[in-house]
Amino acid sequence: MPPSAPRVVESASAVLIGNELLSGKVHESNLLHLASTLRGLGIALRRVVMIPDELEVIAREVAAESGAHDVVFTSGGVGPTHDDITIEGVARAFGVEARVDESLAGMLRAAYGQRCTEHHLRMALVPDGAELATTGDDKWPVVVMQNVWVLPGVPQIFRMKLCVVRAWLKGPAAFHSRAVATRLDEGKLKPLLDQVVEAHPDVDVGSYPKWFDAAYKTKITFDSRDARAVDAALGAFVALLDPGDVASVD
Amino acid sequence: MPPSAPRVVESASAVLIGNELLSGKVHESNLLHLASTLRGLGIALRRVVMIPDELEVIAREVAAESGAHDVVFTSGGVGPTHDDITIEGVARAFGVEARVDESLAGMLRAAYGQRCTEHHLRMALVPDGAELATTGDDKWPVVVMQNVWVLPGVPQIFRMKLCVVRAWLKGPAAFHSRAVATRLDEGKLKPLLDQVVEAHPDVDVGSYPKWFDAAYKTKITFDSRDARAVDAALGAFVALLDPGDVASVD
Repeated sequence: MPPSAPRVVESASAVLIGNELLSGKVHESNLLHLASTLRGLGIALRRVVMIPDELEVIAREVAAESGAHDVVFTSGGVGPTHDDITIEGVARAFGVEARVDESLAGMLRAAYGQRCTEHHLRMALVPDGAELATTGDDKWPVVVMQNVWVLPGVPQIFRMKLCVVRAWLKGPAAFHSRAVATRLDEGKLKPLLDQVVEAHPDVDVGSYPKWFDAAYKTKITFDSRDARAVDAALGAFVALLDPGDVASVD
Repeated sequence: MPPSAPRVVESASAVLIGNELLSGKVHESNLLHLASTLRGLGIALRRVVMIPDELEVIAREVAAESGAHDVVFTSGGVGPTHDDITIEGVARAFGVEARVDESLAGMLRAAYGQRCTEHHLRMALVPDGAELATTGDDKWPVVVMQNVWVLPGVPQIFRMKLCVVRAWLKGPAAFHSRAVATRLDEGKLKPLLDQVVEAHPDVDVGSYPKWFDAAYKTKITFDSRDARAVDAALGAFVALLDPGDVASVD
C-alpha cells in the first residue's frame, strides 16, 4: 500500500541502463514520461545518465547519483537473463547482497505455475534491505532500495509504474511555467532578456529558437515554484516588446 | 576542409545540455541520430549525460567526459542568449577563456548585415585554442576544443552537423550486429543464453523481451567488431533452439 502521505523529495536523477540505447538500436522513450511525471509532482529532475549493462558501471553511477540527489530512478536491466544486472548493480552500490524476496518468488510461482524455473526466479531478486512499493492494486511492486527506485526498461511497463511514483512521492511545491512566443530572433531578444533575467533572479528564463516554423521565431519560457514571480517576469518581458512582435502568450 | 584521413577514435561520450530536456517540456531527439552515426562509424558510444544550463555543471561534466573518452559531443546551449553557455562551459573545462573567433564574426556580419549586433556576435565565441571543423561545403563550422565537439541543440541543425562528424572521425573497425527473434520467454531462454555467453565471450549478447507483439516473445542480439565471432555465436544459439521457436533470423 502507498504511505498515508507521500514522501517529500526535492531533487531527482535518472540512470537509464542498456547497451541498445547507446548503440542507436532503440530510441529511449521512458525519460520523457518520467520527466513529465516528476515535473507534475514538483520534483526537480537534475541529471540523467545513460550507461551500458555493466555491473561495475551501474554500481558506481547509482552510488554517485544516490548520494547527490534525494531520489534516483533506474530504468532497464530488470529481468531473468545474463544482461539483466541492475538489481545486482544497485545492491553493490549500497554494499549489500542481492537476495530472493519470498513474496516476489511466490507471485512468480503463482504466475508461471509448472513452467516456473530457477531462471524465472531471478526476477524475485532484490537488494538486501529493499522495500516494495505499490499503489495497492498493481500486480507487481516496484523495488526501492533506500532512495533508489528500480523501474523496468520496457516502455509500456515503465509507464504503468509511474502510478506508484505518483502515489509515494511529491515535491515541496508545484512548478509554474509560462511562455511567450515572439517574432524576434535571439540576437534582438538578448538585451531584453538580460534585463528580465537580472531583475527576476528567482525565475528560470529559457530561450528556444524555432528555426523551421513560420508562426514565431523564438519562444521564451518562465519557470519557478513561485507563480507570482513567473507572472511578474513574463509581464516585465512582454512590456519590453512591441505588441506586433508577440505571437502568443501561454 | 576535412582532414585527408579521418581521425581514429574508439570511445565516445555525449553531454546533452538543456533545462527543457529535464523538465519534460521537450523530447530529446538528437541522441538517436548521434548514436546511429557513431555506430555506423565503428565508434563506441559509452555514456550519455543530460544536464541543465548551468556553467559549473557543464564545465565539470565536460572535463570528466573529455578525460574518460576519446571524443565527446555536446548538444545544446549554443546561441546568443543568457542561457547559451556551453562555449563558456567547455572553455572552463579546459581552463581557458572564450574569445571571439574573427572568421566566425566575419560570417555573422555577412549574414546579418546592418542588423548584426554585439549580441549576435556572441555566436562567434569559441574556447581559446579551438579548431573549426567543416566538410568544406557547409555554411557554418563545428567548434572542436581538443576532443570535445560542440554541436547545436536544434534537431534539424544537429543532424546537418553529423556530416562533419562523418568526414572527420572513424572507429578502429566496424561493428557487426545480428539478431534472432524467438517465441520463447526470457526464463526459458536464460540457460541457453548462459551457454552461448560463456562460449563466446568476445560477443555482446543482448536479450530484449517484446511484451506487446504477437510475432515473437524475445529478440536476442549478437554484436562484435568481429563478424565471424557474431556468426559463430548466433549459429551456436540457433542450434540450441527447436526450429519452431525461431520467428526470424537477421
